[in-house]
Amino acid sequence: MRVPRTHELDATTVHYVWDNAIPPRIEIDPGDTVVFRCRDSSDGYYRRGMTSADVARRVSKGHPLTGPVGIRGARPGDVLQVDVRELVPGDLGYTSFRPGIGLLRDDFTEPYLKLWELRGQAAELRPGMRVPLAPFLGVMGVALAEPGAHVTAPPRSNGGNMDIKQLTAGSTLYLPVWVDGALFSCGDGHAAQGDGEVCITAIETTMTATLRFRVRRDIRLAWPELETSLARPRGRHYATTGIAPDLMEAARQAVRGMIGHLVERRGLSREDAYILSSVAVDLRISEVVDAPNWVVSAFLPLDIFGT
Amino acid sequence: MRVPRTHELDATTVHYVWDNAIPPRIEIDPGDTVVFRCRDSSDGYYRRGMTSADVARRVSKGHPLTGPVGIRGARPGDVLQVDVRELVPGDLGYTSFRPGIGLLRDDFTEPYLKLWELRGQAAELRPGMRVPLAPFLGVMGVALAEPGAHVTAPPRSNGGNMDIKQLTAGSTLYLPVWVDGALFSCGDGHAAQGDGEVCITAIETTMTATLRFRVRRDIRLAWPELETSLARPRGRHYATTGIAPDLMEAARQAVRGMIGHLVERRGLSREDAYILSSVAVDLRISEVVDAPNWVVSAFLPLDIFGT
Repeated sequence: MRVPRTHELDATTVHYVWDNAIPPRIEIDPGDTVVFRCRDSSDGYYRRGMTSADVARRVSKGHPLTGPVGIRGARPGDVLQVDVRELVPGDLGYTSFRPGIGLLRDDFTEPYLKLWELRGQAAELRPGMRVPLAPFLGVMGVALAEPGAHVTAPPRSNGGNMDIKQLTAGSTLYLPVWVDGALFSCGDGHAAQGDGEVCITAIETTMTATLRFRVRRDIRLAWPELETSLARPRGRHYATTGIAPDLMEAARQAVRGMIGHLVERRGLSREDAYILSSVAVDLRISEVVDAPNWVVSAFLPLDIFGT
Repeated sequence: MRVPRTHELDATTVHYVWDNAIPPRIEIDPGDTVVFRCRDSSDGYYRRGMTSADVARRVSKGHPLTGPVGIRGARPGDVLQVDVRELVPGDLGYTSFRPGIGLLRDDFTEPYLKLWELRGQAAELRPGMRVPLAPFLGVMGVALAEPGAHVTAPPRSNGGNMDIKQLTAGSTLYLPVWVDGALFSCGDGHAAQGDGEVCITAIETTMTATLRFRVRRDIRLAWPELETSLARPRGRHYATTGIAPDLMEAARQAVRGMIGHLVERRGLSREDAYILSSVAVDLRISEVVDAPNWVVSAFLPLDIFGT
């Protein structure tokens, strides 16, 4: 009987696209564990002392991903089970937005940067406003069936940049396998994020991720699925609503309402309100059937304010 | 100093449209409480012993709403604060779907009815599968500014049929006031519902609702907002994903994945899987910024299965 092994993969070598021609850095057996060291999504660009002026100067090549890892025996049609065992974020985080991208691209026309210190259990936006950390990887995925280079931004049937905040330590991700060996890679560490990630960044940081891999042939999947414990405790929340015949427009309306609330009632700048909405406010689809208007609600956990 | 009073409003008289010409059944002062008795959304049509064949025979006039209540002094531009103090559901619930409506209108082409006994803390779908009750009103709203009769189905800036499952006892709803006296009405009792209400019905039931009203002039709202404690405890969840360039299509994909999961892994019929998705599965917008593909995740709480 083989004893499962633990491997380590540092962040010296990364790849910036999904391409099933990239050879695996290591090959492992099902049941093995890999400790991945992952760069942050800016590829190490952001450092202490930088300001909003530095956002416009950054050129992105895509998410720097650590991998691929080949899993022996994994074949197209199988499911790769990824058990998320431990996630350790770095000690510096950033959240940024820039014109032309994000949910409220028309509302925010100047680039903006927020740096966070991550040494405790929460990150401080300002005195008295602390966002509890709940680390996860924004990107976990396998190689696509289609040949060639595919940008990392959109999530696809291979998982990838799904930004599902509930993929915290203790969760399990199930990914359909599209090529022999599965070719798993990961990155895009997030120390905290709201459902929606509305300004397009979470609290972005480096991550040391300990993941265990299994190959499942008893289930079939066309799309990723997951099992998780909800990361945040129940508690008092304040919510705004978006009511519109289009879910995207409803999401925009709910987030605009939340920004208005945070500015008027909590004294935040518009920019910090957008940042806080991205890293801590959860978008839920309240109803999607009461034609012609759907409801998206944006939930702000009030423990951020120590209440 | 006036002592706040408690009023009662029975369900003998209801209205089926929003129309600001409907005179208030009672007028109250700010600070007063009203105990509303509300019919179920079928207007009492469903009874024990009925079957799926009865779904097609039902003709709906709209939600039967108890009210309106006029709040003295409330004027357009004010905000009506509604404190949800107590919600007592009836002892019979129903969930139904029919062709042509609901999120998966193309997937389910036959009408279907599920009746629930609601005497405990949870409603049983089948032995070993129990949905915890978390009662709320699907409809709470005020009269619209626009004259004439408006159907109750779509939620609007007056609130109405928002189906926000977090409006449980202990929550507070803030509604913009559009006409003198606000003219508040409510109905559409739900014993439990998932975010999304995907098959178009929750666990529908009669409701006795105790609501306290205040008039707020220190806040301005264009859309409803609310404050709540999340009703469900944290716990283990299983989630499916929808990944698509349209949020509605992503929601459909996530719910189809959940139905497939419930059928294959939990042995439910497709119809019961759709029902369970509507009454217990939560749709969350995981990300809405990683162009061109958005992610909607559907979360199934596993405590339903006693695990």
